Amino acid sequence: MKKAGHMDKALEEARRAGLRGEVPVGAVIVLDGAVLAVESNRTRELNDVTAHAEILAIRAACARIGDERLVGADLYVTLEPCTMCAAAISFARLRRVYFGAEDEKGGGVVNGVRFFSQPTCHHAPEVYPGLAADDATQLLRDFFAERR
Amino acid sequence: MKKAGHMDKALEEARRAGLRGEVPVGAVIVLDGAVLAVESNRTRELNDVTAHAEILAIRAACARIGDERLVGADLYVTLEPCTMCAAAISFARLRRVYFGAEDEKGGGVVNGVRFFSQPTCHHAPEVYPGLAADDATQLLRDFFAERR
Repeated sequence: MKKAGHMDKALEEARRAGLRGEVPVGAVIVLDGAVLAVESNRTRELNDVTAHAEILAIRAACARIGDERLVGADLYVTLEPCTMCAAAISFARLRRVYFGAEDEKGGGVVNGVRFFSQPTCHHAPEVYPGLAADDATQLLRDFFAERR
Repeated sequence: MKKAGHMDKALEEARRAGLRGEVPVGAVIVLDGAVLAVESNRTRELNDVTAHAEILAIRAACARIGDERLVGADLYVTLEPCTMCAAAISFARLRRVYFGAEDEKGGGVVNGVRFFSQPTCHHAPEVYPGLAADDATQLLRDFFAERR
């Protein structure tokens, strides 16, 4: 599947999160063309502030391959990862991060702490921002507009 | 129990992690004098880079009280939290963080990104470094010396 296809899957999963009342963020992890994990935000459902789409996807992908690291794998996520997720992405040794919407308020990749450029970051993935950014942004906007 | 008692419990749990072959870090979460969670690092056991002592303790404490947040609760951890854990601590709205050893290479509280002082950090706990720092440092040193 192409890059756009993986991000479409992440967007579809983000939409599902929105229908469950969760902030709509979705993530897909791909290794050698195979999808290892498709997850979305479940912080409310699980009463777990760490249950961001990226963290759930990293945990699911690691469980699937029985390894603590995801060397050579790529992450597709609809929103710029936060500081927590950026650090987890680094720890998991992901190869590439494709993300959709930027998050000025809470992002930690191209905003905020820019973790991958810090001396305390010991593995930095390649970062590709803005993949399907319009769709991802619209999804978040619609979600928050409906809840106001 | 006094502060030193909670940190002793965290150190004891850190020692247990070391015996399991995990980097020896332990964490305790306390709310209104009651211990909600006692956890230690299980990244190897669980094949999960997010399974730091603090993350496991936050998740366990939230599960215990059935809430996504730990307002008013305090965390005792033997090592300075990393960037990932610092962000999770902020999300969980912990009141205070007492930690033992500083972590120049990987810390995110008084080293590295100093997350709690960043504009993208929307809740900062009070931070008390250096509680039982010598014991925590010695534990880590012994662990890494043995493995060399």
